[in-house]
Amino acid sequence: MEGVNMKIITISREFGSGGREVGKRLAEVLGYDYYDREIISSLARETAFEENFIEKTLDNVVFPTFSLTFGRTFSTIGNTTVRGTTATNLLVKETKIIKKIAEKGKDFIIVGRNSDLLLKKYRPLNLFIYADMEYKVNRCLLHEKEDKKLSRKAMERKIKKVDDIRSKYRELLSDKAWGDKHNYHLCINTSNLAVKDLAFIIGEYSNFFFNSVRGDK
Amino acid sequence: MEGVNMKIITISREFGSGGREVGKRLAEVLGYDYYDREIISSLARETAFEENFIEKTLDNVVFPTFSLTFGRTFSTIGNTTVRGTTATNLLVKETKIIKKIAEKGKDFIIVGRNSDLLLKKYRPLNLFIYADMEYKVNRCLLHEKEDKKLSRKAMERKIKKVDDIRSKYRELLSDKAWGDKHNYHLCINTSNLAVKDLAFIIGEYSNFFFNSVRGDK
Repeated sequence: MEGVNMKIITISREFGSGGREVGKRLAEVLGYDYYDREIISSLARETAFEENFIEKTLDNVVFPTFSLTFGRTFSTIGNTTVRGTTATNLLVKETKIIKKIAEKGKDFIIVGRNSDLLLKKYRPLNLFIYADMEYKVNRCLLHEKEDKKLSRKAMERKIKKVDDIRSKYRELLSDKAWGDKHNYHLCINTSNLAVKDLAFIIGEYSNFFFNSVRGDK
Repeated sequence: MEGVNMKIITISREFGSGGREVGKRLAEVLGYDYYDREIISSLARETAFEENFIEKTLDNVVFPTFSLTFGRTFSTIGNTTVRGTTATNLLVKETKIIKKIAEKGKDFIIVGRNSDLLLKKYRPLNLFIYADMEYKVNRCLLHEKEDKKLSRKAMERKIKKVDDIRSKYRELLSDKAWGDKHNYHLCINTSNLAVKDLAFIIGEYSNFFFNSVRGDK
C-alpha cells in the first residue's frame, strides 16, 4: 500500500492547552511537515472568504440547530442559514484538503480537524493535549490579544464552549468521543510544563511508537 | 516542609494494561523504591490473613451493598458481612502503611490503591496506564495462570468488572473520577508497545516533569 511507511501524528487538544505550540515544536524536533492554519490558507485560496472568517465559521458553526452566538466576535458575521451552509461547504473542502496532504506521502503533523478519524487508514499516532482549567485560563489571558478584556469567568466559559463544540461536532462523525483517552495513544497534561522540552520527549516517544507498532526504524 | 523534594510517582491502571510492569521497569530506570504487592505483604504480617486473601478482599469488597460474587475464585471466601468488615479494616490499615512509606522520605513508585489521592500533599506525578480491550484480553489470557480457562468474552467481562469496582471505590473517596484524564499528568496507552523501552521514555518524562513543576534538578 502506498504511503504505508509514512508517519502521521494527529494532535487533538483542549482549547488553551497549548496543543498547537506542542505540534509546532514537535514538527521542528522530528523534521515533519506541519499543518494547522495552512489548511485555512488553502481554503481561503479556494474560496472567496478571508482566513479569519473561515476559521471562525469552521470552529463554531457545525449544527443547524446549534446556537451560533459566541462571545462578541460574531456580531458581524451575518445570518444563521448562510453561515450553516457555508460551514458545511467549507468542511467538505477541508476534508478534501486533508486527504490530499496525506496523499503526498510525506511525514506530517496535523492539529485538530478530527484528523485522527479522517486519516485513520494511515494508522497515525494520535495525541491528545489537555490541561487544568486554571492553567488554560491563565494561558489564554496571556496569549490571546483579542480576548484581553475577558474576565477569568468569561474566559473559562469561552474555553468550555469551544471544547463543547469540538465534542459535539465529533459526535456527528464518530461514536468515538472527543477527548476519551481510549481514542488516543498518549494524553498529555501540559499544565506548568515547558513546551519546548516536552516536545523533545514526545519526539522520542513518537519514534519509539512507530518503531514498536510498525517495526519501522 | 519535610520531604518536599521527595519524588513520588503514582500509577493508576486499567486491569490488564500492564501498568504494574510499567511501574516496576520505571522504578528500575529511575532507581526509585517500588511498592505494590509489598503493601499486601505488610498487611499479611500485621494480620492473620494470607496475601492472596487480602489482595482479593481489597480488590473486590468495597461496598456493603455491592455484589460480592466475582467469577469462580470467590466461592470459598465466606459470608458477605464478614468480608465487608474485613475489607474496611484492611483498607484502614493499608492507608496507614502507604502514609508510612511516604514518611520515609525516599523517592518511590506506587501502583494502584488510590495513592494519587492519599499522597496528594506530596505533589506526586500521577500516571494512568490503559490499553485497548483486545490487547488487554490477549495479555491477560497469556499472563494469568488462574484464568487460563476463561473464554475471550469471559475475560473481557472480568476486565470490565475489576475496573468498574476500582471506579466505584474511587467514587467513595473523591469527586475526581477514576480514569478521568484530568486527574493525571500523563495517560499512556500501552497497546502493542514494548514496556521495557516505554519505561525509559517515561523515565525521561518523569525527570522533566519534576524539574518543570518544582524546579528540581
